[in-house]
Order: sequence, then structure tokens, then C-alpha cells
Amino acid sequence: MKLLVTGGAGYVGGVCATVLVERGHEVVVLDDLSTGNRSGVPAAATFIEGDVAALAGEVLDPGFDGVLHFAARSLVGESVEKPGEYWQGNVVTSLALLDAMRAADVTNLVFSSTAATYGEPEQIPITEDMPTRPTNTYGATKLAIDHAITSYAVAHGLAATSLRYFNVAGAHGPVGENRVVETHLIPLVLQVALGHRSDIKVFGDDWPTPDGTCVRDYIHVADLADAHLLALESNRPGVHRVLNLGSGEGFSVREVIDVCREVTGHPIPDVVAPRRAGDPAVLVASSQKAMTELGWTPTRTDLRTIVRDAWAFTSALGDRAHSAPR
Amino acid sequence: MKLLVTGGAGYVGGVCATVLVERGHEVVVLDDLSTGNRSGVPAAATFIEGDVAALAGEVLDPGFDGVLHFAARSLVGESVEKPGEYWQGNVVTSLALLDAMRAADVTNLVFSSTAATYGEPEQIPITEDMPTRPTNTYGATKLAIDHAITSYAVAHGLAATSLRYFNVAGAHGPVGENRVVETHLIPLVLQVALGHRSDIKVFGDDWPTPDGTCVRDYIHVADLADAHLLALESNRPGVHRVLNLGSGEGFSVREVIDVCREVTGHPIPDVVAPRRAGDPAVLVASSQKAMTELGWTPTRTDLRTIVRDAWAFTSALGDRAHSAPR
Repeated sequence: MKLLVTGGAGYVGGVCATVLVERGHEVVVLDDLSTGNRSGVPAAATFIEGDVAALAGEVLDPGFDGVLHFAARSLVGESVEKPGEYWQGNVVTSLALLDAMRAADVTNLVFSSTAATYGEPEQIPITEDMPTRPTNTYGATKLAIDHAITSYAVAHGLAATSLRYFNVAGAHGPVGENRVVETHLIPLVLQVALGHRSDIKVFGDDWPTPDGTCVRDYIHVADLADAHLLALESNRPGVHRVLNLGSGEGFSVREVIDVCREVTGHPIPDVVAPRRAGDPAVLVASSQKAMTELGWTPTRTDLRTIVRDAWAFTSALGDRAHSAPR
Repeated sequence: MKLLVTGGAGYVGGVCATVLVERGHEVVVLDDLSTGNRSGVPAAATFIEGDVAALAGEVLDPGFDGVLHFAARSLVGESVEKPGEYWQGNVVTSLALLDAMRAADVTNLVFSSTAATYGEPEQIPITEDMPTRPTNTYGATKLAIDHAITSYAVAHGLAATSLRYFNVAGAHGPVGENRVVETHLIPLVLQVALGHRSDIKVFGDDWPTPDGTCVRDYIHVADLADAHLLALESNRPGVHRVLNLGSGEGFSVREVIDVCREVTGHPIPDVVAPRRAGDPAVLVASSQKAMTELGWTPTRTDLRTIVRDAWAFTSALGDRAHSAPR
């Protein structure tokens, strides 16, 4: 297949682009490098640097078999502070992409959605029929795009899947998460192991969970990439599927830190800090629908595997990439 | 107050602009007349013809005390067929307005939202904390705008209220609904009374309701206008309120037709047709929150009053305006 991967220089987009190339597909990456990294784009892919809204119309033609749309602003905290940039950068850009796909008669889409569309869950595990009450701008913009995709599927026969990621972690060989994000636990803990941070903050140890710390669902980025390819291959005209992607298992902040200690051999000091506003105690996906719909089975659900792969990537990057943020 | 009313040449916007003028406010109407009518704009208002996205930045300045944002594409059926026009015309336009307000330091907003944001209700009456699962593009675009407004309130201190209308009906003196919309029951029934349609279709008489026809909540447009003014006056910086506006009472399709027969003195033949896909059996608002928050009390909840005012407007318009559609 000939595929356009927007945001293919980012973490998840880069891993997916790499997996697509490995499976023999022809990949064109469109990324403005505002947060992505040229080095994350597989060598065998065609790379176009630029804005998705501006260039999608030029890049796409009927020769493309599908689009994987990862390009987005994705920092929750920043989204709350600068909503305009997120509504423009995520929603307006995605609308331009949908119109460009339509104009070029490219009808197969996989969209990178998020568990943040649900907000505070009424029940665990989270299924796709639960209410969507995003508690931040990032989640609200992704939800709006999900709704827009539904409307294009109904009206114009778009074949689409939105994949709602839970906590993506790990790495795929040379492609991993090389941006330090304040809400992504594993990369932060590994920063401590590398000696770039003195300790890891645990936001609350009095949550109603087995060890008192928040519980999250970690999915290996390579399992995630598999789901994207399966979605692309099974999309049906006029149907927009919305599927959660998680491992279905929850790990607490303490469990994650302990596994990081074990894998890295570093003591990793932790400091308990107050709870953060808006943090739910537990976020765990039901991925039953993705498994059924896609025939997908995550095979790297062991937390050790996820941390080991993340650590291999992070420690190989070494002091070079991580010397700035502290 | 000096107020910008977008879409002030439309039905609800025109009535609100008229009421604002009557109460002594300075009103500037911005409307592209794509569906609105120049004659619906009160004479005392300043009228600017043009696109909201293009002109809001030019029109707004710090001298404005607030904005009432009605401009929108609002036909449910059309929204499903042409989603791109609705995402652009509603969401992208509203984002431009929000940015223009921010640039001009105008911080008070009342937005015309809709019951269609909820979709099929889990429970009746519908309260504001119920899940939002829009079943058409129109509702999805209004929901996205509601979410965008929340994010601007949180980030930039916008003082805002979204009013989620149920079935708006009636007229305010010379301003009423002079566009025939396939889903707006009362104007359609009055078309039959005027002789412009041969009969009124009743979509299903086997619904689980007292007389088997669908039940809806009709709110008088003048009551609606009152709520807008109260919202404007009570908006608080950094707070985005979402309030349902209905009468809290449901009337069946048969009840509406019967009252129209009584008010117009016309037999109004009806024909039972199959149910329409996507029509919920009952849609009735809880407006408790609006009453509490705004100190609002709808005073024209009697169906006879609503139909009488609509009929006065429609019959005065006479054959002139309604000769085309049939």
C-alpha cells in the first residue's frame, strides 16, 4: 500500500511509519517538525517537511491507499493554557486533511485519538460506549475530530478507524519517545535513572487503589503500531469505528517505578507530592472491541518488556538528547 | 450595553436582536444573509452584511460589551449530507469569532447551542450532565463549539453561557420563522393551514407515548430571548455555563396539530407516515438549571400562545413569502 503518515516524525507516528516500511509498504511522511524529529522518520520513507493543513491537498493524489493521521499538538497542560493553538492545530488541520482526502479520492483513514476523550470514567474498564466528557482541551479537540470523521464516513463513504490510545510506552528499536512530557511517567522515571533528574514525583499515595498510587493502562508502542495496520486493512467504506487501545491491565505508579528500578539497576528516588487536579485514580481500557474488530492481540503487555524497550532506547540516546530538560 | 449579534437576520437571532433593541441596548448585527432575512433585523440595529469568520475581527473592538452568537448552518438533514460545510461554517467560524473576541478584549458571550448535542437521551427530562452523543453533524458541530468555549473560558477568562435550545417556536411581533424547515413541526403545520401544503405527515403513530406520536418540548422564542439577556447579564469571567432551554413540558405531534387546527380554524389533514430514522420518541428538557442560574421563568409555555404567535406571524406574511416552497 502507498500510505501518507502525518506526524510521522513523532513518537507514535514514527514507530508506525517504521513498522509500515518494515512490512513493505510505501510510506510518505508529512510532518512540520514542530515537535517531531527528522531522525525518527524511517530512511526508506519519503519525507515532506511542512504543515498538514497547507500541504495535504498537494501531497495526496488517488495513488494513495490510505492515511494514518498522527500530526497533532498533544500536551495536555499546554492545551489547557493555549486552547486556540489546539483547536486550530488539531481540529482545523484535521478538517483540511479530510477535505484533501476527499478531493484526492483517498478513502481509508486511521486516526490517532485518545483516552482523554472520555475524561473522568464512570466505570473501569472504559468501553467505547461510555460518555465522552473530556476534561482538557487536548481531549476535546480529539473528540471533535472523531465526530468530524464520523460525519465524513456517513456522508462520503470514508472508511475510518479512530484508535483511542491509553498510555503509550516502550520503543521500537531506534524509534522511541525522545521528548520529555510532564505527564508521561515512564520517560520521566528513566530520566531519573539516567541522572538527568534527581527524583520522580508521585502525585498522591492516598488514592483508592491497592498501593495508594494512580493506576494506568500501558500499551507498548509496537502493539499499537500493529493495531494501526490491522485497522487500515479492515476499514470498511462508510463506517467509522472507534476503538480503545490499551493492554487491559492496570499498573500503579509504584509498580512502574519498581519495574524501572529493576530494569535500570538505578535506585530512582521518589518523592510523594500532593494529588494533581483532574487525575482520575484509575484509567484502564477495555480493548475487547479492538481485539474483536481487528483480530488484534497485544503481545508486549508485560510491564518489564515495555520498560526494557523504553530503557534501551533512552539509554542509547544517552546524554546527548536529554541534556537540556531538567 | 453595546452588543454584537451574529446571525441576527435569522429567526432566533432576529428575535433576540429585536428584544435587545427594545430593552435599550445598542445592537450591531453581523449576518451573511445566506439563510437570514434583512427584514428580520430591527431597524434600530446597525447591520453589517458579511461572513462572521472574515469580519468579526474588523467589527469587534473593546467598546463592545458582549457577543450573542447565533450565526450557524442549522439544518439537520443538510448537515448529514454536507458535513464539511457545517464543520467549516459552524466550528471554524466560531473559533475565528472566539479569537476575534480575545483580540478585541470582548469577554462576554452567549452561544446558541442545541439539544441535538445530547442525541438519543438515556432519561427524560434531559439534564445538562447527561452524556453528549450527537447523532447528526449539526449537533456534533455545536458540541465542538461548546467544548471550545469551555477551553477559552478556562484559559482566557471568557464569561460564557451556551444555551441548548429544544424546539423553538412562536414569533415576536414581526419577527418569526419564515424559512420552511422539514423538521420544524409548527411552521409546517401552519403551511397546511395556509393552503401551501396539502397535508402534514405524522412520522409514526406507534411510539411508546400516550397518543403514539413523538413528544417534543416547545419553547417560545420570546422566552428564549429573555434567557439570552439574563445569561449575558449574569455571565462570570472564567466560567462557561451550559444550560438547557425548554418549557419542561412535552407536547405530542397530535397535540400540536390539534392546537393548530383550533387556532387557525383550518381542518389541517394529516397522514401517518413511517417513523423516521434517528427520531427519539420523547425529547423534553429539564430547564431547572437555567431557571436557577438565570432567574429565568418561561411565561409563554402554553402551546396555544406559541401557536397563536406563530400563526399571527405566518398568516401576516401571507402568500408572499411562502409561495415558493411546497
